[in-house]
Amino acid sequence: MKKKRWGKSTRSLITLTTDFGLRDGYVAAVKGVILSINREVDIIDITHEIGPFNVVEAALILSAFASYFPPGTIHVVVVDPGVGGKREGVVILKGRHFFVGPDNGIFDGILAGDGKWEAYAIREPRFMLLSPAQTFHARDVFAPVAAYLSLGVDPREFGPPYHLTIGKILGRSSKKDKRIEGKVVRVDRFGNLITNISWRDIKQFPLSKVVVWVGKKVKIRGVVPSYSYREAGEILATIGGGGWLEIARNLGRADNYLNVSIGSQVIVERE
Amino acid sequence: MKKKRWGKSTRSLITLTTDFGLRDGYVAAVKGVILSINREVDIIDITHEIGPFNVVEAALILSAFASYFPPGTIHVVVVDPGVGGKREGVVILKGRHFFVGPDNGIFDGILAGDGKWEAYAIREPRFMLLSPAQTFHARDVFAPVAAYLSLGVDPREFGPPYHLTIGKILGRSSKKDKRIEGKVVRVDRFGNLITNISWRDIKQFPLSKVVVWVGKKVKIRGVVPSYSYREAGEILATIGGGGWLEIARNLGRADNYLNVSIGSQVIVERE
Amino acid sequence: MKKKRWGKSTRSLITLTTDFGLRDGYVAAVKGVILSINREVDIIDITHEIGPFNVVEAALILSAFASYFPPGTIHVVVVDPGVGGKREGVVILKGRHFFVGPDNGIFDGILAGDGKWEAYAIREPRFMLLSPAQTFHARDVFAPVAAYLSLGVDPREFGPPYHLTIGKILGRSSKKDKRIEGKVVRVDRFGNLITNISWRDIKQFPLSKVVVWVGKKVKIRGVVPSYSYREAGEILATIGGGGWLEIARNLGRADNYLNVSIGSQVIVERE
Repeated sequence: MKKKRWGKSTRSLITLTTDFGLRDGYVAAVKGVILSINREVDIIDITHEIGPFNVVEAALILSAFASYFPPGTIHVVVVDPGVGGKREGVVILKGRHFFVGPDNGIFDGILAGDGKWEAYAIREPRFMLLSPAQTFHARDVFAPVAAYLSLGVDPREFGPPYHLTIGKILGRSSKKDKRIEGKVVRVDRFGNLITNISWRDIKQFPLSKVVVWVGKKVKIRGVVPSYSYREAGEILATIGGGGWLEIARNLGRADNYLNVSIGSQVIVERE
Repeated sequence: MKKKRWGKSTRSLITLTTDFGLRDGYVAAVKGVILSINREVDIIDITHEIGPFNVVEAALILSAFASYFPPGTIHVVVVDPGVGGKREGVVILKGRHFFVGPDNGIFDGILAGDGKWEAYAIREPRFMLLSPAQTFHARDVFAPVAAYLSLGVDPREFGPPYHLTIGKILGRSSKKDKRIEGKVVRVDRFGNLITNISWRDIKQFPLSKVVVWVGKKVKIRGVVPSYSYREAGEILATIGGGGWLEIARNLGRADNYLNVSIGSQVIVERE
Repeated sequence: MKKKRWGKSTRSLITLTTDFGLRDGYVAAVKGVILSINREVDIIDITHEIGPFNVVEAALILSAFASYFPPGTIHVVVVDPGVGGKREGVVILKGRHFFVGPDNGIFDGILAGDGKWEAYAIREPRFMLLSPAQTFHARDVFAPVAAYLSLGVDPREFGPPYHLTIGKILGRSSKKDKRIEGKVVRVDRFGNLITNISWRDIKQFPLSKVVVWVGKKVKIRGVVPSYSYREAGEILATIGGGGWLEIARNLGRADNYLNVSIGSQVIVERE
């Protein structure tokens, strides 16, 4: 593997996704470390408001946005209940993007999709920050690794090849013949129900002939291109911003209306 | 109209103002799309915490900050209850700034002030993203249009000239002789009451001779340069950060103290 | 003092820390003013979610992150209960960083550490924005001063040398022989208790021989490198992300569990 640089910019791009919040200065230290190693980098905040320790939420968001970024982008994702424990830190290459973070299932959504990937454990101390505090891997390990990646360091230099087990936290939908079985994995701030059923699986059906079951009682006919294809207050199925099947209520909240929450079964079949 | 570039920087500037929040990855996808089309752009987050579907709030904030940005800045503003419906997407040029978003009143504050403007409907599919999801115009329409603008694409290429009706959502203050009549349109996080009465209208009076009525009972004499011109706990009128008349309470909350909320009448007259 | 430029980048770096929140457009105006004066600057948001008027919180966060940034970084910090009043605005140079904000104790944490500093009052009107509103010093004074600093203006040009009294808001820990006495100064979003006792003071002891008293009843033996050195639910002492002694509970909240809050006494001694 050679040092590669994609795009014409002279600057690298690093995105940050964490559950640190913005009231404690943790994210700030991460940014400072990156900029101290490579000043010629643009740092893009994705969010620092992932629910504390909510690895599922981080995995889902990552899979929703990562592919929109330019080739060569380095995505740092840290939601880490086991910080300082035995889980490995990893660098992953997939689809001309880099991913840096803990191996705790946070990359499930990214790795579940089509395409090859390779990964390396982060073990070389020379790429880590010496620090009086040893509790903060985002700042002391993942930030410098991302910064060195942005300078063109070969991912293999951080440590040995590494195998990640996929699907351990973000339950995956199953396909049998003409039937896809998944579940609600997230409720967004508008009350929309996001499932772990991808548009890649649904597109085998003609969208107007699809039936979506939410739990045992709610039946929705058709997958529509947008909310406004239904009347105000009407329940609908659509493909949401992340490419996942979404149950929504036009100009209202689907979660309260259907009394459905995370974990509820969702089935898609042909009428 | 020729391709213009203001300022000496080699990089364009795009600001983002939305009600998407930061917990769902929507803003991230918007940023990724912009950077994939033009890597040489600086993206400035204004806020993604506009109240869901609160077009009034977005319109007011936009009019408060936009003029402080350098010439050539592209402001993307998306709060869009009618997403996917019949409202048009528009590009507006005013005061050497570009504005991109839905035509739903969100540009009321900007267009109400002095100065000429021109607008174009966004209709050309070649500037839009092909996407499995058709529900997310910010990512699939407004983000690429902003990115192409930043590359120097002429606004007229996006679609035909377009006329926006002004003042339909942000009620405007009325002037009669020596009397200005407006209302409270926003309460900020400190409890300050922001009105739709602009300093441009008030400055016709000597500020020490102004009387401000809030509702029927509260009478404030004089408009002071800052909070600390009054004692702690005292009610005052001042010109707030956005150039709008503001009713505040030094080191306290005016909203609870006066029991005033959005929509309350505010009258300014000469003593 | 000559105009200095550290680092190889052609762009300056300005960080922003405020209590303005992101829903009112105030931060946006600050960014616009900076970029209008110097387009070749990277603005890094630290946080705008400092508790309203909470100078202690800002001082602590600033001292936790500032040192991680590259030399030459300009840190703008504005939490300002006395805005428009008599307190001075200042520019401080310390450790090859610049600090810009009000002299109200916000720089206590930064100035308390080792190392020399110099400061200048901001009094020269030519570096301030002319504005109809005189209530918003962040936009009209601190933003332009930071921008001019980033262009290489000598700090002495803003006004005369200035002396800041240190330690007036962020209570400092005291050292007597083998005993350090401090207090809890902050509870973070995970319920961790952050103290005003620095690792610089604690490192005089062998960390495994340290005893930490929280209030009169809670006794913790040893300072561990990270949370996972203790069982789930166990109380521990560690050095947190900012280099301050921190009382935490592995995978839980220490604040509720210990019924301890801001101001509680913390004593460190050798066993």
